[in-house]
Amino acid sequence: MNFLEVVQARRSLRSYLDKSVEREKLEYILESARLAPSWKNMQCWRFIVVEESVGRQALAESMGEDNPGRKALIGAPIVIVLCAVPSESEVWEGKDYMMLDAGLAMEHLLLAATEQGLGTCWQGLFGEEKARKALNVPANVRVVAMTPLGYAAEERRPRPRKGTAEIVFHEKWGQ
Amino acid sequence: MNFLEVVQARRSLRSYLDKSVEREKLEYILESARLAPSWKNMQCWRFIVVEESVGRQALAESMGEDNPGRKALIGAPIVIVLCAVPSESEVWEGKDYMMLDAGLAMEHLLLAATEQGLGTCWQGLFGEEKARKALNVPANVRVVAMTPLGYAAEERRPRPRKGTAEIVFHEKWGQ
Repeated sequence: MNFLEVVQARRSLRSYLDKSVEREKLEYILESARLAPSWKNMQCWRFIVVEESVGRQALAESMGEDNPGRKALIGAPIVIVLCAVPSESEVWEGKDYMMLDAGLAMEHLLLAATEQGLGTCWQGLFGEEKARKALNVPANVRVVAMTPLGYAAEERRPRPRKGTAEIVFHEKWGQ
Repeated sequence: MNFLEVVQARRSLRSYLDKSVEREKLEYILESARLAPSWKNMQCWRFIVVEESVGRQALAESMGEDNPGRKALIGAPIVIVLCAVPSESEVWEGKDYMMLDAGLAMEHLLLAATEQGLGTCWQGLFGEEKARKALNVPANVRVVAMTPLGYAAEERRPRPRKGTAEIVFHEKWGQ
């Protein structure tokens, strides 16, 4: 798969097979995240690999009861939780590069998983304090996002995107 | 190249050849960015493709005089500027997902460029108001980052990264 094919293949998948993920695939996707670029190379990201069902259940309970992500976290063999250390990034002119850096490392992880035939699903709508307690994350570290990881039991069509002319300008804004 | 090879090949490159970028490559990398995932699929990102030297010069002047990024923006045939629309994302429990979404779309762009043999370099250390004026970006839109884009005139070694054991935990924080 070339890069665009990987991007095109990524979907938000919430149903998973009862099938474990090979260790070498897990290592491959974590390595892809580890090598992400970051603000002044400070690498604010941390990943917690949650495989025990008690941990995945607790993370699911950090979400609203009607959040379809709950089912994904309980049903997938692995949940990967993205944390970020604010002191290992900076806010510059009001822009929080911690969120940017953490996000792109996580996206490396999701794209690597997609290439390896695994399903993922970005999850941001959870209660941070509940997730923090479930995983003993220190008070000075943010819990930013999480994703289920496993072999998906569903296929999905791509969601719509804005057209190129809506998001790409030339030389100046709006042109 | 598989995905990890693309990640491993990406470098922050600041010297560029006097060689133009093929239109199909530019379209390929913008398409890779366009398809990025985002908070509630709101797609806050906008890209401004700056090719005229007057625009690239103005962006370079938004940076500090000792910023090596200046040379990169002036020397590369293209600069791509990442903007983000705050109303097309959300702040959730104090976490600004606009920065996360914008960042991962831009990282799609950088990885696609890397795969296509092109050089890039994340730039965040610039004065936003100067960049805003140079490109007529409205006051309600943030200018988040930029990158030169072109065929690089240098090779670089990878920068160091934290080891896996420093950034990957199992089941709970610190384990």
